[in-house]
Amino acid sequence: MGRVWSVDLPNHVGRHVVIAGWLLRLRRLSQVSFLIVRDGRGTMQAVLDDPALIEQVAALPAESVLRLEGEVVNTPQAPRGVELRGEKIEVISEASAPPPFELHRPEIAAQLPTFLDHAAVGLRHPRHRAMFRLAAASVAGFRETLHAEHFVEIFTPKLVATATEGGANVFAVDYFGKPAYLAQSPQLYKQTLVGVFERVFEVGPVFRAEPHDTPRHLNQYASLDVEMGFIEDHTTVMALLERTIAGMLSSVQQTGRDELELLGCELPEVPVRFPTIDFVEAQRLIHTATGEDVLGEPDLAPSHERWLGEWAAREHGSEFVFVTGYPLVKRPFYTHPDPSRPGQSNSFDLLFRGLELVTGGQRLHRYADYLAVLAERGQDPAPLAGYLEAFKHGMPPHGGFALGLERWVARLVGAANVREATLFPRDMQRLTP
Amino acid sequence: MGRVWSVDLPNHVGRHVVIAGWLLRLRRLSQVSFLIVRDGRGTMQAVLDDPALIEQVAALPAESVLRLEGEVVNTPQAPRGVELRGEKIEVISEASAPPPFELHRPEIAAQLPTFLDHAAVGLRHPRHRAMFRLAAASVAGFRETLHAEHFVEIFTPKLVATATEGGANVFAVDYFGKPAYLAQSPQLYKQTLVGVFERVFEVGPVFRAEPHDTPRHLNQYASLDVEMGFIEDHTTVMALLERTIAGMLSSVQQTGRDELELLGCELPEVPVRFPTIDFVEAQRLIHTATGEDVLGEPDLAPSHERWLGEWAAREHGSEFVFVTGYPLVKRPFYTHPDPSRPGQSNSFDLLFRGLELVTGGQRLHRYADYLAVLAERGQDPAPLAGYLEAFKHGMPPHGGFALGLERWVARLVGAANVREATLFPRDMQRLTP
Repeated sequence: MGRVWSVDLPNHVGRHVVIAGWLLRLRRLSQVSFLIVRDGRGTMQAVLDDPALIEQVAALPAESVLRLEGEVVNTPQAPRGVELRGEKIEVISEASAPPPFELHRPEIAAQLPTFLDHAAVGLRHPRHRAMFRLAAASVAGFRETLHAEHFVEIFTPKLVATATEGGANVFAVDYFGKPAYLAQSPQLYKQTLVGVFERVFEVGPVFRAEPHDTPRHLNQYASLDVEMGFIEDHTTVMALLERTIAGMLSSVQQTGRDELELLGCELPEVPVRFPTIDFVEAQRLIHTATGEDVLGEPDLAPSHERWLGEWAAREHGSEFVFVTGYPLVKRPFYTHPDPSRPGQSNSFDLLFRGLELVTGGQRLHRYADYLAVLAERGQDPAPLAGYLEAFKHGMPPHGGFALGLERWVARLVGAANVREATLFPRDMQRLTP
Repeated sequence: MGRVWSVDLPNHVGRHVVIAGWLLRLRRLSQVSFLIVRDGRGTMQAVLDDPALIEQVAALPAESVLRLEGEVVNTPQAPRGVELRGEKIEVISEASAPPPFELHRPEIAAQLPTFLDHAAVGLRHPRHRAMFRLAAASVAGFRETLHAEHFVEIFTPKLVATATEGGANVFAVDYFGKPAYLAQSPQLYKQTLVGVFERVFEVGPVFRAEPHDTPRHLNQYASLDVEMGFIEDHTTVMALLERTIAGMLSSVQQTGRDELELLGCELPEVPVRFPTIDFVEAQRLIHTATGEDVLGEPDLAPSHERWLGEWAAREHGSEFVFVTGYPLVKRPFYTHPDPSRPGQSNSFDLLFRGLELVTGGQRLHRYADYLAVLAERGQDPAPLAGYLEAFKHGMPPHGGFALGLERWVARLVGAANVREATLFPRDMQRLTP
């Protein structure tokens, strides 16, 4: 007899089936026992009235793995309106101890560090599991959107000889006795590969040795990276990002209905065009509204991003807002200047619900421009030779963006800490599990 | 006027269009010049008969980036049977020097190290580019197959506190003053997550500090990892692998037609069931056929894998062959023994065209079994606490496999060295570009 998934049980009413999964909860009443069983896709209820079966499971710790045979019957008060009348039970694998927290409660009653220490069990909680299904759905939508626009998926080195995004905050690796670093981004490779495929994307880990212990920083995260050639300027990239976000949300909506409901999560509206505000104009607004002396500062603080998020919601009814024209001085060397405003750049950040989610922009594409900017910054071009070769041999105007998957999911589901949206987070203190 | 891709030109005969791309080759005849232009998806021909235009491009180095306007006309001898009659040319970005090798030749005339040093340009060669399109198509087919079977995509840490697959061959990282390692595989995480999602996959980099300088080893490669719960034994995993390989090849066939033709590459037949030979039986065959004293050896040498590949082709008409039942002693601690043969394991390798492509098998799933095997091997369970917790709290019989993407592509296209099937390979000598 083939096994039936929890989510498919309603299609089997009146039939004898096999189910399998983990014992989420056992409730013993006087004549019957109810089992809530979790399988890979959902939870389901089984009921036992045979005293022998009731006895068989009476002492089982939660999370034991079971196989049950029985008839599927309609039961309005059970999950999905059906339950299994158990006729035969096999204990596939008995848990050695009760779980460190009760997984059948609506929320796990543990502080975040305790939860993370016991991730192997904590992630089994339906709410937590749901977040990662939404992450997977988001990535699927990301890829689908880009495939449809002829982007090619790439896999680039994570061990590099030079720091990608500037000298600080890199993890050092001993590479057969030679110094190496973990890649902070696939930036140099994705640009190089615009020369090959024009349009590329990568979904992969990036590593930041930033000594920041905040609810929004991770030292490894999944970066959704995109780069495309033959753009007009950064606005071509922003339009692509709008379509990509729409594709991600559409995938989440289509495949994550149960998860969104479980999490009580409202997806944001996606305006056809996201509201956009220039960096200098944003500073003026913040200054006027808050009195804070932000004019002339080279970057926005988290509190300013929050303010802009509220402003965009209020003024434009949008949970997304682009900030464009960041000062060149705070952007990496490959950033393309704004031709009409020296000192400003053809770059953008996308804020989502008041937090920077995406950074992107147009890159320099002329070989001479790279040599000039590196000379200006006093940076030796020699270690970048393999990258600069792409520009030496013809590159179109191009640009791209990078989106942090965990931040995206955390914002989407309203998690207070990005670590909740990371299967096994890495931070300054945490290297296990 | 919207830009038209090379591959779409035949749909625009008789129309004025814009094309853009890299100048692959310029051929000047007495009255006309022919340009072969490469865009992100293919190559196309343009012809110029206006002396001013001919003059405009006369001195352009190959790989300069161009935009051309003109009428699409039928020309049987041109690629795809069409060419563009150029009426206007914009040089978007002039190359600063001729490329280090001629990209318009059927093959690049350079030794592999030279090619790899200049990957930024070498990868632009249509043959090389084609390989990576097939890689991307393979990964797309991998994911599609697994999504259809309800596998969830995961993203796991690449910075770990303990060596995944045993002590040797790990890269050491300085993690905020603490020792850490680059993950040799997502093995422990994917098993842990069987407890959460039952079925998981990951496509990500893995790192092996193996000091092997061979045509089939890389120190970073893209691992296609799968793990599934509620299996019968390793044969359930083997059947899944067969479906996955079929899905990968079907995706390559559907989206890689031009690339397969360009590379002159024949896809393997996929038998519904791949031939399978037991390890001990394989040794017996090799011993009988070659006289080599292999009986009792704990592993197969590359020459034995080649021999088995030829045997499977000859005896079963298959380019794939499973070898099962490897001695436990050569497999990692989490390997499930063969219940009927102590010393042998419920594991397998899949050989493709005579080379190990995939390793997989059933894993232990009982907590007590893990404690016993670690004690037997004299391995401290403490550093594995976060992993062992999954087994302590109920795990079903499970197993999985890992497939190296670069090896797959190299075998598929007949590349002699796996580095050719890697965008920017990392080996003992090579950390750039």
